[in-house]
Amino acid sequence: MQNNFMKISPKETIKTRDEAITADNNDPLASARAAFALPKDVTYLVGHSLGPPHRAALERLNICATESWAKGLVGSWNSAGWFDLATKLGGKLAGLIGAEPDEVIVTDTVSVNLFKLAASTLPLSKGTRQICVDAEEFPTDQYIAQAFADLTGVSCRRVKPGEDFDALADGGIYIKSAVNYRSGERVDMKAYEQAAEKSGALILWDLSHAAGVLALDMKAAGAKLATGCTYKYLNGGPGAPSFIYAQKDMLSQLHSPLPGWMGHAAPFAFNGQYVPREDAARFASGTPPILSLSALEGALEAFDNVEMKALEAKAGALGDLCIARAEAIRLDVMSPREASSRGGHISLKVKNGYPVTRALHAKGFQSDFRTPDTIRFGFSPLYLRYVDVWDLMEVLAEILETKSWDTPEFHQRSKVT
Amino acid sequence: MQNNFMKISPKETIKTRDEAITADNNDPLASARAAFALPKDVTYLVGHSLGPPHRAALERLNICATESWAKGLVGSWNSAGWFDLATKLGGKLAGLIGAEPDEVIVTDTVSVNLFKLAASTLPLSKGTRQICVDAEEFPTDQYIAQAFADLTGVSCRRVKPGEDFDALADGGIYIKSAVNYRSGERVDMKAYEQAAEKSGALILWDLSHAAGVLALDMKAAGAKLATGCTYKYLNGGPGAPSFIYAQKDMLSQLHSPLPGWMGHAAPFAFNGQYVPREDAARFASGTPPILSLSALEGALEAFDNVEMKALEAKAGALGDLCIARAEAIRLDVMSPREASSRGGHISLKVKNGYPVTRALHAKGFQSDFRTPDTIRFGFSPLYLRYVDVWDLMEVLAEILETKSWDTPEFHQRSKVT
Repeated sequence: MQNNFMKISPKETIKTRDEAITADNNDPLASARAAFALPKDVTYLVGHSLGPPHRAALERLNICATESWAKGLVGSWNSAGWFDLATKLGGKLAGLIGAEPDEVIVTDTVSVNLFKLAASTLPLSKGTRQICVDAEEFPTDQYIAQAFADLTGVSCRRVKPGEDFDALADGGIYIKSAVNYRSGERVDMKAYEQAAEKSGALILWDLSHAAGVLALDMKAAGAKLATGCTYKYLNGGPGAPSFIYAQKDMLSQLHSPLPGWMGHAAPFAFNGQYVPREDAARFASGTPPILSLSALEGALEAFDNVEMKALEAKAGALGDLCIARAEAIRLDVMSPREASSRGGHISLKVKNGYPVTRALHAKGFQSDFRTPDTIRFGFSPLYLRYVDVWDLMEVLAEILETKSWDTPEFHQRSKVT
Repeated sequence: MQNNFMKISPKETIKTRDEAITADNNDPLASARAAFALPKDVTYLVGHSLGPPHRAALERLNICATESWAKGLVGSWNSAGWFDLATKLGGKLAGLIGAEPDEVIVTDTVSVNLFKLAASTLPLSKGTRQICVDAEEFPTDQYIAQAFADLTGVSCRRVKPGEDFDALADGGIYIKSAVNYRSGERVDMKAYEQAAEKSGALILWDLSHAAGVLALDMKAAGAKLATGCTYKYLNGGPGAPSFIYAQKDMLSQLHSPLPGWMGHAAPFAFNGQYVPREDAARFASGTPPILSLSALEGALEAFDNVEMKALEAKAGALGDLCIARAEAIRLDVMSPREASSRGGHISLKVKNGYPVTRALHAKGFQSDFRTPDTIRFGFSPLYLRYVDVWDLMEVLAEILETKSWDTPEFHQRSKVT
């Protein structure tokens, strides 16, 4: 794949719709879009919440259900590779985050995995017996931190903005998102790990808003432990299982508090004593949801032959274009201006954000809204085009200019995901 | 549905293949079979391990993937009811185990759920601070008990056969299967609960081998807490999510150690403090695997208008027929003789059990094998017929008589599920 995307800096150069189309024509990732089953009339900007189906995901799922399950029945645990599927997908995911194949396993949810990682690393962390979590962190991560503290008696420390490194200096465990779910801010993982190294703190990275859109490199960052969901930029499907990454050198010291039979070194010996596998699959627990895993298997095909750096660069460029246009209409951008400091989504502070989101939706542009006034656009580089971003911002400008959102029906609030 | 199944006592009356066919003709559950997508040449006796797909399960899954996900995209969390699906399925499952709709939630795996139940009940149990588990219990249950003990400092007690009530008399927590995975023995839940009541012990029932085949009645048994898988007799699909049952009166005192956002009373308030739901959904954790849940939704349609007592009676009658035929050929039956003391499966001790299992498989009869010498037959009453059991035992008798299993290829061992 050529790196000619580097020639384009859309924030600087795209000033017209035609220039956006030219950028698409020069986009080395342009061909990836065709494989996604997206409705024709929809520009989908919510890939940071739920990715759309790749056609291979739908195919794999269909084969899993109608062939492996319906015809192969229980024998498919061996013949269709179900038994090794979570490990196989972990190995594939490893390639997308700069990890070794045996350092990653697909299992459970982010919540459950954070707990497993916290419990298994507590005995290894040094310094203060605490579990730290940002006061602005995704709520579930905060809930798990608090519950873990309640159960084990360590203290739960809610870290205020700007005090991350103070907390790290005291040791313990720190749950930290690589990309903040609200602002889209990306942190320098290497700097955090270096600070942790000094105090003996251990960081549990939440990669939910980072995996599948950034060129993560666990090894280069010195990251030891992580989890993340697979249904956002990895397009694994609604509620697709999460993953755990654990650095090879640490694995033998990590003992999951939820040791299910799928993580046992000899699961069919039916032995009452637990002997964990040597690889990251020691974090597997009960029988995984194979149908959901099969969709994820297909979804990951979208990343075959895709260079993660190209993906990150395009996500950054799409975001840059959004920011440039947002600034042109004097909107308040809540996300970092520099692409290198962002994940794949941009948050804009928009007065009457909810009805504006609905008005965008009515025009075919799906985005999401977070109270009280945040509109988020996710720029998934596999299926979004520069012209999509251009059109989005034109339509948004028109909605704000004409106040077309200000109708009685838009004042009716309903549940927002 | 008429209770004319009561007129048949196959152990006594079925002496010929024709009589088996007559029993099928009189079977009030006979019509259920047609809705299962079973291969024509297969008699499937492994429903206690992985149930086959009900056609509604395949349909729901297909709609979920190709309509709700591909067309509805993220909006399907509301429009397709994804957000409430786990609660809705919990309510439906409740009806199959004699519980109230708000006492059951579908979530995670049995392993994870046992941990959640153990951690949330430990502060409520009285007597010795211990977690008991049978030394013969399904291994994963033992692993979780041990890991829970390691994390919390309570003692883990492996209960030897016959000492259940001694352990219960000391209080604490007891993980107990309603039906043993190996022998098929069913315990008197009410008697256990009465013993627990005296000491203040709390029993965490594992209903994996009982739900969907027995007429369980949590309320009548005085059962307070349970979990179970949904991929065996409930036919939810490979690795379909598990469920948690918690008695209504206890719910407000139970605090999950894995409080995910799906169990929050106001998940979209994005509040850093956890406020659990009032119903069993407080045990929900992270985002559930919707594709797998959708298959389970279809699978549960098989139980619409089915009386669980009729289901249990037929499972018992199919097992009785198997036992009668097994005794006729002097096979060692490891399961209780009385249907009322059994779950849905029968274990036979068979010398050279593995190649015999393979020989049965070659004749179209799928069963499973557990080392060193156990062949298990699961009698799922929704799709198995009396004539299937008759033919199974005839073929088994022939295989043993002619030693047709004794070929070089049958001596090659491979992984068995």
